[in-house]
Amino acid sequence: MTTLTREYFVELDCQDVLADYRDQFDLPEGHIYLNGNSLGVLPKAAKARAREVVEQEWGQGLIRSWNSADWIHLPRRVGDKIAGLIGAAPGEVVVADSTSVNLFKLASAAVKLRPGRGKILSEPGNFPTDLYILQGLEKFHDGRVRLNTVHRDEILDAIDEDTALVVLTHVHYKSGAMFDMKAITNRAHEKGALVLWDLSHSTGAVPVALNEVDADFAIGCGYKYLNGGPGAPGFLFVAQRHQAQLQQPLSGWFGHANSFAMRDDYEPAPGIERTLCGTTPVIGASLLEVGVDIMASADMQQIREKSLKMGELFIELVGQRLDEYGFGLASSKDPAVRGSQVSLTHEQGFAIMQALIARNIIGDFRAPDILRFGFTPLYVRYVDLWDCIEALAEIMASGEWDKPGFRKLTAVT
Amino acid sequence: MTTLTREYFVELDCQDVLADYRDQFDLPEGHIYLNGNSLGVLPKAAKARAREVVEQEWGQGLIRSWNSADWIHLPRRVGDKIAGLIGAAPGEVVVADSTSVNLFKLASAAVKLRPGRGKILSEPGNFPTDLYILQGLEKFHDGRVRLNTVHRDEILDAIDEDTALVVLTHVHYKSGAMFDMKAITNRAHEKGALVLWDLSHSTGAVPVALNEVDADFAIGCGYKYLNGGPGAPGFLFVAQRHQAQLQQPLSGWFGHANSFAMRDDYEPAPGIERTLCGTTPVIGASLLEVGVDIMASADMQQIREKSLKMGELFIELVGQRLDEYGFGLASSKDPAVRGSQVSLTHEQGFAIMQALIARNIIGDFRAPDILRFGFTPLYVRYVDLWDCIEALAEIMASGEWDKPGFRKLTAVT
Repeated sequence: MTTLTREYFVELDCQDVLADYRDQFDLPEGHIYLNGNSLGVLPKAAKARAREVVEQEWGQGLIRSWNSADWIHLPRRVGDKIAGLIGAAPGEVVVADSTSVNLFKLASAAVKLRPGRGKILSEPGNFPTDLYILQGLEKFHDGRVRLNTVHRDEILDAIDEDTALVVLTHVHYKSGAMFDMKAITNRAHEKGALVLWDLSHSTGAVPVALNEVDADFAIGCGYKYLNGGPGAPGFLFVAQRHQAQLQQPLSGWFGHANSFAMRDDYEPAPGIERTLCGTTPVIGASLLEVGVDIMASADMQQIREKSLKMGELFIELVGQRLDEYGFGLASSKDPAVRGSQVSLTHEQGFAIMQALIARNIIGDFRAPDILRFGFTPLYVRYVDLWDCIEALAEIMASGEWDKPGFRKLTAVT
Repeated sequence: MTTLTREYFVELDCQDVLADYRDQFDLPEGHIYLNGNSLGVLPKAAKARAREVVEQEWGQGLIRSWNSADWIHLPRRVGDKIAGLIGAAPGEVVVADSTSVNLFKLASAAVKLRPGRGKILSEPGNFPTDLYILQGLEKFHDGRVRLNTVHRDEILDAIDEDTALVVLTHVHYKSGAMFDMKAITNRAHEKGALVLWDLSHSTGAVPVALNEVDADFAIGCGYKYLNGGPGAPGFLFVAQRHQAQLQQPLSGWFGHANSFAMRDDYEPAPGIERTLCGTTPVIGASLLEVGVDIMASADMQQIREKSLKMGELFIELVGQRLDEYGFGLASSKDPAVRGSQVSLTHEQGFAIMQALIARNIIGDFRAPDILRFGFTPLYVRYVDLWDCIEALAEIMASGEWDKPGFRKLTAVT
């Protein structure tokens, strides 16, 4: 392997078919942002949209905007656009609530669809809120379902006739490891179980084809690769074939067949809208739509190709430039099972990441020893990877990381 | 009673101690807005705050803003400010999710605190989402708790030793009728039951003293009298004495004792934060804070006095100017049991409200025959009431309401 040079990375950017997308984002001057897997950046168009929804739709339109600005159809309209990103059909996705709340709704509903089965299957080390919500569900159902976590390599074998639901995060938040969605869904269906995929680290990052793999349920995050803004609403997917039977416990008025008839008895909306609960967070959903529109205009195959190339080069640079400093690789070298990030390990990972952030190169740290670097091909350049590794090499050579100030946690996935 | 004149209303505005607050809101030119009980208006300061949180905190600060802009403490910070509006203590209120989701959390948790009791008590015609959420809860507990609705006059007698929880909306969304919070809470406690108050139509509208009446739980809405913006996050209250025992089913990562330790096992935060679930909707919560700050700067006793005076005058005007047109009064004439609205009935109520809205005088309609007029003393003037009734008299006299265009539903409570 030839030695890589900065010129080579600059040249890759010149040839990059996605390079023009970067101009659609409002990146802070002088920063390298490798944390879009945690909080995506601000689309320039979101600034104008925020003013419009706050100053015009709310300020001038007031209550009339539920009709005149079509606030009432926001969950479905943005949902239909997200459906296009994950291989779902219109009418199978809505935007609502948070990822955690959406998981509770769908996991509860799924368990109801498999009466007599007592097991929900997941993996230890899954994204914490997924496990916490399933533990809440377990408690709420007074032990009639129990959460069983097994190592990811043993998931296929653990799916059995007592399994009601398998809940897995498609791309792992720490390692970026990616499950074979088709194999697991197939096995679950063979055993009569259902599968719920958490697509938080997949949507907008890797190709997802829910209907092609015959998926049952999915949830996902609006503020990572979709660039929807901090705490943007989440989304959820229910395959068309499950919708008519679906009963979810958070049966609020926006999920009613006729919300404004103001009747006393709940009657679920006929389609995906039955998964809605309270009043739509209008401003959050409107800003999310801006990010989704940009993502929908891009070619997911091109995004994936650039992302894989970035991952490959990043790993190669780590090998060439950081070999002597004790870093380990927490992500697979096999691109087929890796999402859009590369994670390293280092026993001083926390302080090292702080030193990097102090230089305006932003990745993040996950306990106990993981340094995460996310690749978001629409706004990250190849040369950013070079400059990041260059900075890391300097930080390690100089001992710059070893300062008392580099101690406080700064990031939220 | 002397005949009222427009000059009298203008004079009242001149003497109004709250008059200056109107300048803090961005009201559309030429409008009379009597729908702040459904969606409050835009505070001028929210425009600048929206730009700041979107363009600076998100755009420039990115992931660092969880610390540098203190996003992480938003639920508690804004919650503490709301606590001051409802007679609660710091550490008893957080901002999170929607009103519906918060009701699910607290009603589930309350039922857990009263094992062996099978009844949740409410009233027919309560705000629909409250009943729908309780019906969802009923279904998911497979009949171990059942919802029992009795007429509001029979609530006190219906609270018995089998009652786990009483769920009532303090001020009724349609009629504005107000419960005696102290009497109901006392009776419930005598019988060993708990009470959950929905303060959606109370907070910022009428004085509320949760701790003075020894309240257990409450929820409320951010986008009505608090002027938090369309679909703003809701809030919830848990009395300090219940917090350590509280187990709520939506146990997401923001409710964890140590969210960023990323452990597999849920451990609830020690205090009110255990009621949080997913990632905070940062932009919505930040804009809500602006509305809450304005409300917190005002004197609730002055607000209540102006609101009652407005209600009294409005009812008097209806009597003097609309007597011949078949309107009924759906609100009590007794100010002690009326919130900050007056509702009329009319069999052509829907079309009449549309005709009024076409003149930029905005109230709303609730099936089957209710016209609602909300009084928000910080930005509604006395003279607006006169002009509203004047317009109504013209609409009725001319038959202006009887047009085919006035047919479509336009408002969301």
